[in-house]
Amino acid sequence: MSAVEKLQAIQEKNKSYICLGLDLDPKKMPPDSTLSIKSMYEFAMNIIEATKDHVCAYKPNLAFYEHLGHDGLSLLESIVKRMPENIPLILDCKRGDIGNTASFYAEAMFDKMNADWVTLAPYMGYDSMRPFLEYKDKGIFVLCLTSNSGSKDFQLLDVGGKPLYEVVAEKVDYWNKENNCGLVVGATNPEQLKDIRVIAKDMPLLIPGVGVQGGSLEKSLLYGTDNFTKPAVINVSRSVLYASNGADYADKARDELIKLNNQSKKLKLVN
Amino acid sequence: MSAVEKLQAIQEKNKSYICLGLDLDPKKMPPDSTLSIKSMYEFAMNIIEATKDHVCAYKPNLAFYEHLGHDGLSLLESIVKRMPENIPLILDCKRGDIGNTASFYAEAMFDKMNADWVTLAPYMGYDSMRPFLEYKDKGIFVLCLTSNSGSKDFQLLDVGGKPLYEVVAEKVDYWNKENNCGLVVGATNPEQLKDIRVIAKDMPLLIPGVGVQGGSLEKSLLYGTDNFTKPAVINVSRSVLYASNGADYADKARDELIKLNNQSKKLKLVN
Repeated sequence: MSAVEKLQAIQEKNKSYICLGLDLDPKKMPPDSTLSIKSMYEFAMNIIEATKDHVCAYKPNLAFYEHLGHDGLSLLESIVKRMPENIPLILDCKRGDIGNTASFYAEAMFDKMNADWVTLAPYMGYDSMRPFLEYKDKGIFVLCLTSNSGSKDFQLLDVGGKPLYEVVAEKVDYWNKENNCGLVVGATNPEQLKDIRVIAKDMPLLIPGVGVQGGSLEKSLLYGTDNFTKPAVINVSRSVLYASNGADYADKARDELIKLNNQSKKLKLVN
Repeated sequence: MSAVEKLQAIQEKNKSYICLGLDLDPKKMPPDSTLSIKSMYEFAMNIIEATKDHVCAYKPNLAFYEHLGHDGLSLLESIVKRMPENIPLILDCKRGDIGNTASFYAEAMFDKMNADWVTLAPYMGYDSMRPFLEYKDKGIFVLCLTSNSGSKDFQLLDVGGKPLYEVVAEKVDYWNKENNCGLVVGATNPEQLKDIRVIAKDMPLLIPGVGVQGGSLEKSLLYGTDNFTKPAVINVSRSVLYASNGADYADKARDELIKLNNQSKKLKLVN
């Protein structure tokens, strides 16, 4: 099964377009989960157990593990080992390096951590992606137009009549010979999302920025899926993980996801 | 002492512009070093012991440790802990993420791993760099024009009459309020290196691509330092680390460095 098919299968089964970002921030977690790697592991496991029927992917961002050193990476390894097999794992690592080096990153993410997808930065071009693309049943989401304020510094620059992020989208489409490419497009840019959806053809879009960052779920879904005809994944992290900082955090996280899924369902019905 | 001052102090002391990339590739290491984390550690320690008077920095690329999982990160932690204090540590991680996430990466690289410098990818713009810039005695090298073939895919695109990499160089210069920014410019682009040296003003340049990738040491040094008036660091990795795959690898690595330093010295004398 290809990475896209795996994604679509779970979206169908769980009736969910929501990817949950597993960004474990000790400062935001319930007080008794902040003290040790073990309690962070339990937090993650409880979250996964409570949410596994309500998401279409899990997306840990590596930064939230690397700052804990090798113990943090060990924590991430333990978490990904126990993830439900039918739910795609997106490792949000935004790597990008010369070909020889990129092949080691691909091994780290796809073989060692068993990711289905990774996120990659485009600046270093094709040979920085090729080692990842050679894994035909895995996938890459390439940064296109991101959700942060800094996106305007380079991504919006005019390149021969179109913004740089459109050139990135076109190039990634060109590189997508094996249907294993996708794009990252921030929910905070709904109008541009529409345009990118056209350039992206059948590529899946990974859309962060709903929730704390202020993006609209409705617009992200409608534009990102082109009225539910194309694949897209909406990422939420903080607003779900830390919906409660009491003992009921896992239940509250599930409740938030059910709410988001219900909003999606209604939107699908009327469109 | 600022990160730039620390760099200049060791360049003066060791009479070297060469940074050694500690990219431990089991396939290229002497046969008895490839079998375990312990023997890789010994390889690295022997290399550092043999070369510490002949380099101006060490630059491990994270990919070569991450593909070994948490044991690899643990290996890197052990190596950096035992590095000579007066030699700058450049962690080549090429990270780039939204502000909140970038602050965790900054913590990982600067606090946990005690790097003096990191490399960063520019695509996500200013807020992806700000958490790193807040460490005023540390430094960032931002990817500008890289040494790989994929550099042409985006970095050379024309943006209002100049290539994208020049826009990146100008922006980084603008962000360089605390003299803690530098640029990565591949040795495989000597002519462009000249132009970037002008835009970069007093910023240090990190120049990979000499050695296996085919860049010229002479041009990198002359153009990168603007005739020895500006700071620059030339990185070599494979051609030094794996100069021999016998038991004499550390001695051969030192010999290679001495050769490179002698070439630099001659060049300095005639310029």
